[in-house]
Amino acid sequence: MSPGSRTGTTPALLTDLYQLTMLTAYDELGMRAEASFEFFVRHMPERRGFLLAAGLQQVVEFLEDLRFSEEELRWLEGTGRFKPEALRRLRDFRFTGAVDALPEGTVFFADEPLLRVTAPIAEAQLVESRVINLLHFQTMIASKAARCRLAAGDRHLADFGMRRAHGAEAALLAARACWIAGFDSTATVEAGRRFGMPISGTMAHSFIEAHDSESQAFADFARVHPRGLTLLIDTYDTVAGARKAVELQRQGAVVTGVRIDSGDLAALAREVRAVLDAGGCRSTRIVASGNLDEFWIADLLAAGAPIDSFGVGTRLDVSADAPYLDCAYKLQEYAGRARRKRSTGKATWPGRKQMVRRFRADGRIDGDLVALADAVPKGEGMLVPVMRGGRALAAAPALEESRARARRSIASLPEACRRIRDPEPLAARIDEDVRALADELDGTVGQRPR
Amino acid sequence: MSPGSRTGTTPALLTDLYQLTMLTAYDELGMRAEASFEFFVRHMPERRGFLLAAGLQQVVEFLEDLRFSEEELRWLEGTGRFKPEALRRLRDFRFTGAVDALPEGTVFFADEPLLRVTAPIAEAQLVESRVINLLHFQTMIASKAARCRLAAGDRHLADFGMRRAHGAEAALLAARACWIAGFDSTATVEAGRRFGMPISGTMAHSFIEAHDSESQAFADFARVHPRGLTLLIDTYDTVAGARKAVELQRQGAVVTGVRIDSGDLAALAREVRAVLDAGGCRSTRIVASGNLDEFWIADLLAAGAPIDSFGVGTRLDVSADAPYLDCAYKLQEYAGRARRKRSTGKATWPGRKQMVRRFRADGRIDGDLVALADAVPKGEGMLVPVMRGGRALAAAPALEESRARARRSIASLPEACRRIRDPEPLAARIDEDVRALADELDGTVGQRPR
Repeated sequence: MSPGSRTGTTPALLTDLYQLTMLTAYDELGMRAEASFEFFVRHMPERRGFLLAAGLQQVVEFLEDLRFSEEELRWLEGTGRFKPEALRRLRDFRFTGAVDALPEGTVFFADEPLLRVTAPIAEAQLVESRVINLLHFQTMIASKAARCRLAAGDRHLADFGMRRAHGAEAALLAARACWIAGFDSTATVEAGRRFGMPISGTMAHSFIEAHDSESQAFADFARVHPRGLTLLIDTYDTVAGARKAVELQRQGAVVTGVRIDSGDLAALAREVRAVLDAGGCRSTRIVASGNLDEFWIADLLAAGAPIDSFGVGTRLDVSADAPYLDCAYKLQEYAGRARRKRSTGKATWPGRKQMVRRFRADGRIDGDLVALADAVPKGEGMLVPVMRGGRALAAAPALEESRARARRSIASLPEACRRIRDPEPLAARIDEDVRALADELDGTVGQRPR
Repeated sequence: MSPGSRTGTTPALLTDLYQLTMLTAYDELGMRAEASFEFFVRHMPERRGFLLAAGLQQVVEFLEDLRFSEEELRWLEGTGRFKPEALRRLRDFRFTGAVDALPEGTVFFADEPLLRVTAPIAEAQLVESRVINLLHFQTMIASKAARCRLAAGDRHLADFGMRRAHGAEAALLAARACWIAGFDSTATVEAGRRFGMPISGTMAHSFIEAHDSESQAFADFARVHPRGLTLLIDTYDTVAGARKAVELQRQGAVVTGVRIDSGDLAALAREVRAVLDAGGCRSTRIVASGNLDEFWIADLLAAGAPIDSFGVGTRLDVSADAPYLDCAYKLQEYAGRARRKRSTGKATWPGRKQMVRRFRADGRIDGDLVALADAVPKGEGMLVPVMRGGRALAAAPALEESRARARRSIASLPEACRRIRDPEPLAARIDEDVRALADELDGTVGQRPR
C-alpha cells in the first residue's frame, strides 16, 4: 500500500452514535459471534445502465488503521454516555475481521454484493458508517465518470470538479474515481500527488480580465510559457479570441490549445476550428468546459463539434442527475444463521452471498447470478478475498490496474447498459437457494410468538 | 478561534493546477497590484426561496493556515513545471489580504456578494478553488437544512447524513451547516466533538436481526440502557413492534422513543401513537426517518402525522433536489480598476460591491440593494470586515451565535421566500452605479483595438 495514497487516518469518532451504542451493548450482552454484513445497491438510479465499483482501497486503509485515540476516549468519557468498561473496550478496539469484495473497476448491478465484511458483530457493525461513506461516494462518481468516458470516445477527459466537490476528501476521491473510470487527467494538484494521476490546467478568466486587453493577457501568458500554452478565449468574444491565438502563434508562441467555457459550444468550436486551421494552427487543440456531463458531451460529438478535450466538473463531482445511490450495508448472517430485514420496500436477500458472472463467446457479459457464497465453487465468484484477520492480503493494487480492469469490465457490458440515453441495466438472477432461505426466514424469525 | 473546530489544515496543493500556473505568471510578470474577488451565486436553484450563508469560518481558518510544506514543494519541483524562483516564492507564500463577508447564518439571494477577498492578485487568485469548495458546500447544505427546519416547525430535527455524505469532511461540515440552520442534533459523533453539537442516535436493524426475536432484542437493549432508550420498530412489523415497546415499558423499561424507518410513515405513526397511548406510553416520542426531506416532512405534518422527531439524512447531505449552486468567485477589480467578465450567460457585475438590506416596520426584509462598496456608508452594508492583513479580526463566533443569527434572518424573510413549494426568492436591485460601470467597461476593455 503506497503510503502517499492514504488521504489521512479517519477519526474513529467519524461514525454514527448508534454504532458506539450498539458496540457497547453487544459487549455487555456477551454477543461476540461472527457476523457477515454486505454492501449492495438496492435499485439502479434511473439514468445508469451499470455501476462501477470504486473506493475499496480507502475501506481497507480505514479498517487497518482504525483506532480510538486517547483524546477521543476522553471526550467520550465526558459525554457521560459510556461506562468505564466500554471505554476500556474502545481503547483496545481493532478490526480483526475479513473482507471480500469486487475489485475496484468492476461493473456491477442492483442486488449484487459489492463488499462483504465478516467479523465479530461489534466490529462489523461499528465500521458501517464509514464503509458506506467511502464506497457510496467513489462508486457513484466512478459510475458517472465511466459514462462520460463512453460519451467522449477517445477524446481527452479532465476532472475539473474540485471547487464544487463536497469538501477536501470528496475532491481527492472524486479525482481518484474518475481516474479509475478512464479520465485522462485532473486539475486537482493534490490528487496528482496522492494518486499519481496526470494533472492539467489552463488559465482563468481573471487572468485575462486583470490585463488591459485580451491580446496583452495572451502575450503575457505566452511569455511565461514559452514551451506551450492553452489560452482561454471566451472572456469577451470567442471567435475574436481564436484570431488572437492565431496571431500569437504567428509571433512565435506555441499555442497547444484554446479553451471555450461558455456559449454554443458546438457552433463556437466549429468557428474556432476554422479560424485556427485557416491560420495555420492545425495542431492547436480545442478544449471545452462549462457544466458538461455525458449527455452534453454525447450531443456535442453527435453534432460533429471538433472538440479534442473536455473539462468536466460540477455535474460529475456531485453526480448531479443521480446525486445518491440507494445502497445499504446489511446484516446477512449472525452466529452461523442467515438474517433478513423485511421492512417495507427495504427487504434484503439473506445469507452470505457471492456473485457469479457468465460471459458469452464474444467476451460480453451473459448474465450475473447472486448465490449463497458456500454454494459457489472457489475461484468462480466475482468477490475476492481482500482482508483476513484485519490485514490486507496484498499490497494495494496500482491504480493503473484498477483502471485497466474498468476498461475491460466496461467493454464487457451489453450495448444496452452502455447507452448514454435510456440505458437498460442487467438484473442479476437471484439463485433459488437464496429465495428459499428468504422464505424460510420469513416463516420463523420475527414471527416467533413472544 | 476554538482550536477543536478546525477540520485539519488544508494541503496547499488542494487547488486547481491553473491557480499555481497563474500565481507564478503574475510573479514573473510583476503583476503585484491588489485585486478584489467576490463570491456570489449567479442563479437561485429552482426550489429555493433563499440561501443561508455558511462556511465562512472554515475559509478564515484556511486562509490563516495556508502554507506550502517542504514535501509539497519537493513534489512540485519533481513535476518539472515550476522554475526555482517560483518554488521559492511558494515556500514563502502567506495570505496577507482582507476578507469582508456576510456573517454565517445570514439569508441571501442571487447576485449578492457573500464574500469579498482583497489581496495582491496572486494571493487572491490562488485561494479560489478551496474558498469555493468550502463556501459552496456548507451554504448549499445550510440552505436545504433551513427549509427542513421551516417544514418541521418545532419538531426535533437530527442530521443522519454521514454515511451518504461525500467523504469525511463533507459529513462533518454538513452536520455543522445543519446546526447553524437550526437542526437539534447530529448522529455524527465527531461533529459533536468538533462543533459542540448535541449528538443523538438509536439502534440499527442489524441489532434486531442479530437476535432470535424482536422482543428479545428490545429487552436486551433495555437491559443495557436502563435510563431510557429509543427502539427501532419497523424491522418486521411496525405496529407489532409498537406493542412490544408498550410491553417492555410495562416491564419497567423507559421507552423514551420509537423509530419508524420505512412504510407509510403517516399511517404508521398514527397507528403507533394509538398503540402507545392505549398502552400508557403517552410520553414515548415517535421518531421518523428514511429518505426524508423538507417536502416529505411538510406532507407528513400536513397529514397530521403524530411525529415528534425527524432523522434527515441522504437527501439533505447531498442537497438532492439542488445538488449544486451556480456560484462563482470572480475578479471585480484589479489595480484600482473595475473588471468584468462578459462570457455568454456568465457576465458579472463589476467593481467592489456591498449589499444593503432594508427592513420593514414588522422586521421583514423589504428589499436588497447591491451597490458599489465605496458608495455605501460605513456600517450600513451586510458584508462585514472579517480579516485584515491575513489575520482574523476577531475570535471565531460561537456556532450558537451563527445559529441565532440564522433564526432571526430566516424569520425576517417574506413569506413567499419561506414556502416549501414554489417559493419565490427576492431579486436584489442592482444599483445604477453598478450598471453604469458595466456599460462603461463594455465600451472599452476587450474591445480595445490591438
